[in-house]
Amino acid sequence: MTAESSQRDAATIEEQVLEQARAAKKAARTLGMLTTAQKNEVLLAAADAIDAAADEVLAANAQDVTRAEEAGTEPALVDRLRLNPERIAGITGGLRQVAALPDPVGVVVQGKTLPNGLELRQVQVPLGVVGFVYEARPNVTVDGFGISFKSGNAVLLRGSSSAASSNAALVQVLRRVLEEHRVNPDAVALLPSQDRSSVTALIQARGLVDVVIPRGGAGLIATVVENAKVPTIETGTGNCHIYVHAGADVDTATRVIVNAKTRRPSVCNTVETVLIDRGIAQEALAPIVSALQSQGVTIHGDEPGMVPATEEDWHAEYLSLDVALKLVDDLDAAIEHIDTYGTGHTEAIITGDQAAARAFSNRVDAAAVMVNASTAFTDGEQFGFGAEIGISTQKLHARGPMGLPELTSTKWIVWGDGQVRPA
Amino acid sequence: MTAESSQRDAATIEEQVLEQARAAKKAARTLGMLTTAQKNEVLLAAADAIDAAADEVLAANAQDVTRAEEAGTEPALVDRLRLNPERIAGITGGLRQVAALPDPVGVVVQGKTLPNGLELRQVQVPLGVVGFVYEARPNVTVDGFGISFKSGNAVLLRGSSSAASSNAALVQVLRRVLEEHRVNPDAVALLPSQDRSSVTALIQARGLVDVVIPRGGAGLIATVVENAKVPTIETGTGNCHIYVHAGADVDTATRVIVNAKTRRPSVCNTVETVLIDRGIAQEALAPIVSALQSQGVTIHGDEPGMVPATEEDWHAEYLSLDVALKLVDDLDAAIEHIDTYGTGHTEAIITGDQAAARAFSNRVDAAAVMVNASTAFTDGEQFGFGAEIGISTQKLHARGPMGLPELTSTKWIVWGDGQVRPA
Repeated sequence: MTAESSQRDAATIEEQVLEQARAAKKAARTLGMLTTAQKNEVLLAAADAIDAAADEVLAANAQDVTRAEEAGTEPALVDRLRLNPERIAGITGGLRQVAALPDPVGVVVQGKTLPNGLELRQVQVPLGVVGFVYEARPNVTVDGFGISFKSGNAVLLRGSSSAASSNAALVQVLRRVLEEHRVNPDAVALLPSQDRSSVTALIQARGLVDVVIPRGGAGLIATVVENAKVPTIETGTGNCHIYVHAGADVDTATRVIVNAKTRRPSVCNTVETVLIDRGIAQEALAPIVSALQSQGVTIHGDEPGMVPATEEDWHAEYLSLDVALKLVDDLDAAIEHIDTYGTGHTEAIITGDQAAARAFSNRVDAAAVMVNASTAFTDGEQFGFGAEIGISTQKLHARGPMGLPELTSTKWIVWGDGQVRPA
Repeated sequence: MTAESSQRDAATIEEQVLEQARAAKKAARTLGMLTTAQKNEVLLAAADAIDAAADEVLAANAQDVTRAEEAGTEPALVDRLRLNPERIAGITGGLRQVAALPDPVGVVVQGKTLPNGLELRQVQVPLGVVGFVYEARPNVTVDGFGISFKSGNAVLLRGSSSAASSNAALVQVLRRVLEEHRVNPDAVALLPSQDRSSVTALIQARGLVDVVIPRGGAGLIATVVENAKVPTIETGTGNCHIYVHAGADVDTATRVIVNAKTRRPSVCNTVETVLIDRGIAQEALAPIVSALQSQGVTIHGDEPGMVPATEEDWHAEYLSLDVALKLVDDLDAAIEHIDTYGTGHTEAIITGDQAAARAFSNRVDAAAVMVNASTAFTDGEQFGFGAEIGISTQKLHARGPMGLPELTSTKWIVWGDGQVRPA
């Protein structure tokens, strides 16, 4: 392809994305008016329709998988791409679960009557048009639709090109169900994915797109957040620490650390650095190291028998059976280390000392702070939100696990009987 | 100045801003730990100190005013720049008012105990480092400090170069008071203002600055929001409408429209377009037009006796004694017009019809919707927030009048006794 034709393609793709965004904005105007019952009916019908279309979806997915295998994609990635009857059941089960969740739209957040008789209500309303940019897994396509639709938003889905056939098959079913229920099908659209130009068009579509949420690796998230002209919500980067305080129970510390590292090492709430207070190192270091090593964890640190640590290890989000380990002088040194290297996701302290627990909880700057509990609990489902939108590591709008209410904004509705404001 | 030396200056200014931002971030870590009593003591001491230093502040301000007058600045702008004893009293009164407001830090937003015994609390915490970019008025310098400090944030102030001497004098007093109270004085800093490079450095300081709020004209706001790499909150642009529904009381409509246009035409909540339903135009048009004209308002529209309206008038945020006026067929047409031309600030309907009031409230997409009330009520002080941070016209994080809680984020604090997450 020549540089010129590639530029022409990018211009065409940009125009297509803007067209889809305009259509989504138009659809969004009517979504906020749907009743909860109407939305739930659509979500349940969509689940049934995907179950009924499982054969076509699996056939489309087989094309994606074959293409990926022929391109020599690594097996772990191919596995994330692959659908099977169980995974289809998981996808449609997710839609039914979202249907069962409370509707965030119309909830009155606060309200009052002013001395002049004006009645104020602050009401949750949909954001409007939400964009998701994500990687291989086709289940995010349906998830992204479900949570957006339940919260009254239109959604623009920019999945991976490797899942293009699967995503197209799924979105086709969703749009057909919307039409059957007399809902504007532009409430969900799949953006072109052959190159990055659709991402660029999406994240710069000011006035059409209300928020873009990237779901995927650190590189994808940084690209979206740093180049966006529309608001974004940064998710997921987690360099999480567990600090074993001098007043810790060693058994508790060991169990929590092993759980936080080995339960699912590839997710963002796994622990990446263990900080052990010198005041307890003599009792705690050996059992923690040996428990981790017996589970196949590689320890990077300065102590004998560890892989020697470099500055990079303190920054590392391994997402693997690796962990960094450091001895620290005291609580202040632990917080200083976390301030320097943490990503503001989840930080934990193990201690039986009330003053240390309070100081750590208050002083550490993160979306979630755990006292005597595994970092693995930072999760929308664990927190009881029912749906998994991602974990915000930014401070504006949403912080920590995001549920359906995080896909809403608010509106002030003020009712009066002719009040005017004095000069 | 040569292009080369100007580039060198820009690099120096950028380094200075980053240095100030790093110092502010360091100060911010301790601000969140101050008790409400400590913060209030500082705010009251700052008010007293500015009162005591009134002569020096007024002398510095006189320099700014002289410079502006010599440069031929228009009188309205010079007036905004000018301080006098009454305005100083207004500034210090504002600080005392902020001291009296509830502390937003530490408020528990929600919480629960999970089935496994984990105790969750979502607690309001400071954002960290807040940047304000604003125009001539020196009172914003002290306001910006007061609301940021009360909410536990460090603040970077980028005022207008025309107010440089006044701002420097005020910030010097504030920093001295902080030092006297053993608070890190880098909790407030005045950024260089000789050119735009300090704005650019501020809005791109990712990792150091948590949010930038522009306060000023539409051009300033657009520049900040579109070029920022840090989160921003868009404020203030208001093309507000009042729709006189067929079921309106004409006297109410007339009083509300005249109030919304003439009370303070230069503020963002003034009405800029009046939409009159054809179903009531015969009774309503003449009294509304004549009431507006008797107050010196120029009406832009398609009816006889008006200045002929062009497409630009429907977009216009006049901020003057001008208003656009249009006849519309019905509620749908009014909403369609507002969807097309509105800026999402405040939209009002005048009607005695309950169904119309509900439909307008629910369907119009704006920060505030008024039923039978003046658009002038969209205001933090009117809503009872006590402090005026601006009116957000974006949907993320904050929408409508912003109070102190809008300068906070949240943190999940989770206490347990050794819980681990099952596989």
